[in-house]
Amino acid sequence: YPATYGAPPAANDPMWGYFTAIAGQDGEVDSEELQRCLTQAGFTGSYSPFSLDTCRIMIAMLDRDYTGKMGFNEFKDLFTALNSWKQNFMMYDQDRSGTVEPHEMSQAIGAMGYRISPQALNGIVKRYSKNGRIFFDDYVACCVKLRALTENFRRRDTMQQGSVNFQYDDFILCTMAI
Amino acid sequence: YPATYGAPPAANDPMWGYFTAIAGQDGEVDSEELQRCLTQAGFTGSYSPFSLDTCRIMIAMLDRDYTGKMGFNEFKDLFTALNSWKQNFMMYDQDRSGTVEPHEMSQAIGAMGYRISPQALNGIVKRYSKNGRIFFDDYVACCVKLRALTENFRRRDTMQQGSVNFQYDDFILCTMAI
Ligand SMILES: [Ca+2]
Ligand SMILES: [Ca+2]
Ligand SMILES: [Ca+2]
Repeated sequence: YPATYGAPPAANDPMWGYFTAIAGQDGEVDSEELQRCLTQAGFTGSYSPFSLDTCRIMIAMLDRDYTGKMGFNEFKDLFTALNSWKQNFMMYDQDRSGTVEPHEMSQAIGAMGYRISPQALNGIVKRYSKNGRIFFDDYVACCVKLRALTENFRRRDTMQQGSVNFQYDDFILCTMAI
Repeated sequence: YPATYGAPPAANDPMWGYFTAIAGQDGEVDSEELQRCLTQAGFTGSYSPFSLDTCRIMIAMLDRDYTGKMGFNEFKDLFTALNSWKQNFMMYDQDRSGTVEPHEMSQAIGAMGYRISPQALNGIVKRYSKNGRIFFDDYVACCVKLRALTENFRRRDTMQQGSVNFQYDDFILCTMAI
């Protein structure tokens, strides 16, 4: 393909133009830019738009160098994850009330492959509920945090033993940003 | 003191009447009740009211039985903590712009006695900034999380060695609710 020789591989990607428009001059997407983009793209549809806080943890989930911004590949990863969480949520929210039940959220977390005790699941579901139901924004915030914390844990669990020895500073670093 | 014999000790506390009015029928304060109470009491003053998310983590910080609600003693503990964080914030925000600088927040965290590496501090401060400045709501959210995560860590660090061996489920339980 001599015509694209030397061009960045992303330039052929249909999402590239979209990304650069959102990212602006610095070529990366921060939480305000992400919130604007998800709102304008109508991603949340009839559900309430994502809060800035949820957008921040979306970025923190992928932001290994702690800049608070996302490059193109992270941006694509995020969209893939968001789309699957949305499909998941809509499957449970069949009447489009915008909320799912606590037991449905527990089921969903199990179906994503997480092995979490009933006690922990119960704590999680309560934390993300409002009046006993879970809204889309909180559902996504929960999925983002669970994925980010699990990845942070796994990356340190090199022997795959299900346990990690954390130094205080590292524990704070990998939990405070999420 | 025979007159108060048999009465709950809280009944003599000037904050008791206030607490029961907020708590309502179930005798405990949940995040919506807390948000209303802090807003109506004018706690945030000229600063923006606390978001519901910040109120949730305030409760999670003290909620060891994972009910999502606070009893009277937790309620008083929270007010003590909030008052000291507010004084702290106002000391740095001398022009009452409602924000403090990143380096001031780093200083404040150090002054609270936390020993955190520059790298972790930098990550924390970025996470709670908007356009390079920290608003009161985010400042408090950061203080709440830092205290809660540090307490969760310390409670497990029985030998006080600065390191804790976490099982995955316990790691998720003590970080997802915060
Ligand atoms: Ca940008
Ligand atoms: Ca109540
Ligand atoms: Ca409780």
